[in-house]
Amino acid sequence: MPDNYLRHVVLFSFDDDASEAEIHAVEQAFSALPAQIPGIAGFEWGMDVSVENLAQGFTHCFLVSFRTTEARDSYLPHPAHQAFVAKLQPILDRVLVIDYWTGSA
Amino acid sequence: MPDNYLRHVVLFSFDDDASEAEIHAVEQAFSALPAQIPGIAGFEWGMDVSVENLAQGFTHCFLVSFRTTEARDSYLPHPAHQAFVAKLQPILDRVLVIDYWTGSA
Repeated sequence: MPDNYLRHVVLFSFDDDASEAEIHAVEQAFSALPAQIPGIAGFEWGMDVSVENLAQGFTHCFLVSFRTTEARDSYLPHPAHQAFVAKLQPILDRVLVIDYWTGSA
Repeated sequence: MPDNYLRHVVLFSFDDDASEAEIHAVEQAFSALPAQIPGIAGFEWGMDVSVENLAQGFTHCFLVSFRTTEARDSYLPHPAHQAFVAKLQPILDRVLVIDYWTGSA
């Protein structure tokens, strides 16, 4: 039986006037969280390359994996995560977050 | 260096009057695609369990992985995928699709 993960899917679109440097800083700050927050079991992200025109304007997808609900619940209020959110907020246009457990048959 | 994957993230919300049986049939039909379409390198899905109230009404997340852009491009028009879409359409409220390559630093 494969391991189950709690996947935390985060989509961003950024303000039109956000600079490339500002967006890059957010990408780097998010990518730094796994080293700062215990309980992150997996982390990956990338920019939209879909071809169906169904991304609803979202340009970035981050996938954070946890082993337990408790790990996710510790991550959200963690000071490092909150500092990241504060850095993100000034250039954030929209955000979508959906979490799911792998292992559905 | 870890393997890179092309992730194909698909979010659904269903019509209010969609029955549990109809939604279950869509879940099962999507889950049957990896056995029908070559080039699907990974497949998982689950229902939203997020706690931030940022899922924008989406209730289901499917994550389909490919090794190459060509595999994704073969999947989209594949008759089995198109048959799935036809089964989905009558009860689909909204859909969001975003694809990204893993491996961003």
